[in-house]
Amino acid sequence: MVKKEQTVGLVETKYFTFAEPPHEMPLEFGGKLGPITLAYETYGTLNADKSNAILILHALSADAHAAGYHRGDKNPGWWDPMIGPGKPFDTNRYFVICSNVIGGCKGSTGPSSINPKTGKPYALSFPGITIGDMVRAQRYLIDFLGIEKLFCVAGGSMGGMQVLQWVASYPDRVRAAIPIATTLKHSPQQIAFNEVVRQSIMSDPAWRNGEYYEYGQPERGLALARMIGHITFMSDKSMEEKFSRRLKNGNYNFNFGVDFEVESYLRYKGDAFVKRFDANSYLYITKAMDYFDLSGGRLIPPGRRVDTRFLVISFKSDWLYPSYQSQEIVRELKMRFVDATYCELRSTYGHDAFLVELDEMKEIIRHFLDKTYSGADVLRVYEI
Amino acid sequence: MVKKEQTVGLVETKYFTFAEPPHEMPLEFGGKLGPITLAYETYGTLNADKSNAILILHALSADAHAAGYHRGDKNPGWWDPMIGPGKPFDTNRYFVICSNVIGGCKGSTGPSSINPKTGKPYALSFPGITIGDMVRAQRYLIDFLGIEKLFCVAGGSMGGMQVLQWVASYPDRVRAAIPIATTLKHSPQQIAFNEVVRQSIMSDPAWRNGEYYEYGQPERGLALARMIGHITFMSDKSMEEKFSRRLKNGNYNFNFGVDFEVESYLRYKGDAFVKRFDANSYLYITKAMDYFDLSGGRLIPPGRRVDTRFLVISFKSDWLYPSYQSQEIVRELKMRFVDATYCELRSTYGHDAFLVELDEMKEIIRHFLDKTYSGADVLRVYEI
Repeated sequence: MVKKEQTVGLVETKYFTFAEPPHEMPLEFGGKLGPITLAYETYGTLNADKSNAILILHALSADAHAAGYHRGDKNPGWWDPMIGPGKPFDTNRYFVICSNVIGGCKGSTGPSSINPKTGKPYALSFPGITIGDMVRAQRYLIDFLGIEKLFCVAGGSMGGMQVLQWVASYPDRVRAAIPIATTLKHSPQQIAFNEVVRQSIMSDPAWRNGEYYEYGQPERGLALARMIGHITFMSDKSMEEKFSRRLKNGNYNFNFGVDFEVESYLRYKGDAFVKRFDANSYLYITKAMDYFDLSGGRLIPPGRRVDTRFLVISFKSDWLYPSYQSQEIVRELKMRFVDATYCELRSTYGHDAFLVELDEMKEIIRHFLDKTYSGADVLRVYEI
Repeated sequence: MVKKEQTVGLVETKYFTFAEPPHEMPLEFGGKLGPITLAYETYGTLNADKSNAILILHALSADAHAAGYHRGDKNPGWWDPMIGPGKPFDTNRYFVICSNVIGGCKGSTGPSSINPKTGKPYALSFPGITIGDMVRAQRYLIDFLGIEKLFCVAGGSMGGMQVLQWVASYPDRVRAAIPIATTLKHSPQQIAFNEVVRQSIMSDPAWRNGEYYEYGQPERGLALARMIGHITFMSDKSMEEKFSRRLKNGNYNFNFGVDFEVESYLRYKGDAFVKRFDANSYLYITKAMDYFDLSGGRLIPPGRRVDTRFLVISFKSDWLYPSYQSQEIVRELKMRFVDATYCELRSTYGHDAFLVELDEMKEIIRHFLDKTYSGADVLRVYEI
């Protein structure tokens, strides 16, 4: 029986502020941060024993608005097909939370926030943060919501890193985990792409060593950074299917303007990004991703017993977070006697697949959650 | 019997100037160019019937100096292991020519050359050029050298495009062709990488719409362009082998400086490139590559009989010019009854392999040239 999928309807972003000075939150790099505000949204209802909460974690440039509509918006949240009544993260059954990250610029404390000590944006005086710090801040939110144990933590890309970090930091507080298109650690190629992205921002004189807030964003550098990113989010094949060698204006012009549709698309995406994301946040968050490393026993230390059940998902055409990295996660889990199921999906969409190629993933996640919720054995989708 | 390989020794770049006004060379985009100077080098001796000439063509940022040593240099030319006495392009037998391209900045006429009409560098007044124009200019050089038919034309990457263009433009003048790690046309992903490379140059205010010659290069933009390029020249695996996640200075610092060795390497490569290549040349040449398209019967038109023998080579780990593009070349050739042999080599070095992983390629090319020179059947290395 196919469930009727519905929207969660009108939603609003909420804000939780904590770690008020002098009780600032200590950071892994040795700094301190406070007060900290986290933007988050919730969908569905927390049950009486608070056992039905699912925490959704987002990728590099997304936000707390994962599902439903903000008043006046035409487009729903970034994972709307996944979250709602009858959808895989079924709000008839689960209480779904999506938390933004510290370091970002979507309502949570980050480099563009006002430093209460100076009355000005932090800019580069914002302390160094890690994925561990992001997750620690989220734990404060989960405490505030009165949830002792999350039924599930799920997310793709950097969201998947946070999923892994949740289990590494708070293994007793996660019953099921779904890391998607992610890795235990960035490869040198992933670091290299992040480095050119940072260099494109920092090479723009309008970046002004991070002190650009009264002048406006380093537009060209940030747009270029995003253009580079977009190439890595797609696949050779999906670009061929979407653009091939079609010309934007029907002929070549050799004036270094736009000739091909793919060029036009990248420029559009770059320009649009400048309006919605802070350049310094891009620097801080990409560094946090590059530093992230739960390999070598850091995900689950030797001797620790972890009852969290894992569903690990990757996409065949994803060359930015290739399947072998997801298989490494599964290997680490199996070596620690952790219940882990792995599935490689066949999408051609590259890394973007976890946001756009949802049909198969929806069924697999729905099934995994159903089985876990009912206490039955986890479906073994594909054992490696 | 293994032949003893020797160096060609001390060499010098030569210069050939032609198309003196008013006899300028017409260009495919409708412009004209003249006078044109081509930088080239030769190794070995042209035989009496001029039947032993091999033309070597280079990639995007290389030059005419393919083999031997310039006076005072520590390092030899860019394909030195391939060219010399006893080497695959054996100068005991063959007369090897390496020609630079128009549009470049290594001694041939390009945007940094002085426009005789104005007494200033062309900059963006340099006309639009194509791979076809590059090859047409090389044909003038081959005419000048008195060579009616080249025994072989060989090159990798953009050098391979020129190989294909030689056969498309002058099919009767090429006996054997070796296109390596190349394509009939750029995919949208290849165009996209070139576009971000161009944007990184053009976004640098020091580029000054191309009029930077009296001020110096747009250093940051050009360095960034090259950093992006270098990621695409390597493979995920070769970067892992070369850098893994090793730190440059033994610890993280979170000040957006260099943390990882791979970051240091890319910055070094970017900075070094600024000293050796002209930013406007990079723009012109990448556009020529993007416009190049010999698919759909343009390599060998229907009905044309072509006796050129092909050895097509690709590398398994090359994701910038993936093997399927070389297989497309072979398919086009076979459809036109052209003698074509294909070999995919197993290197992990990515696109760089044609410059660095030479052992297998040397044997295969040596064998192919031997058989062709002796008139015997071409070795079928691997038939697709």
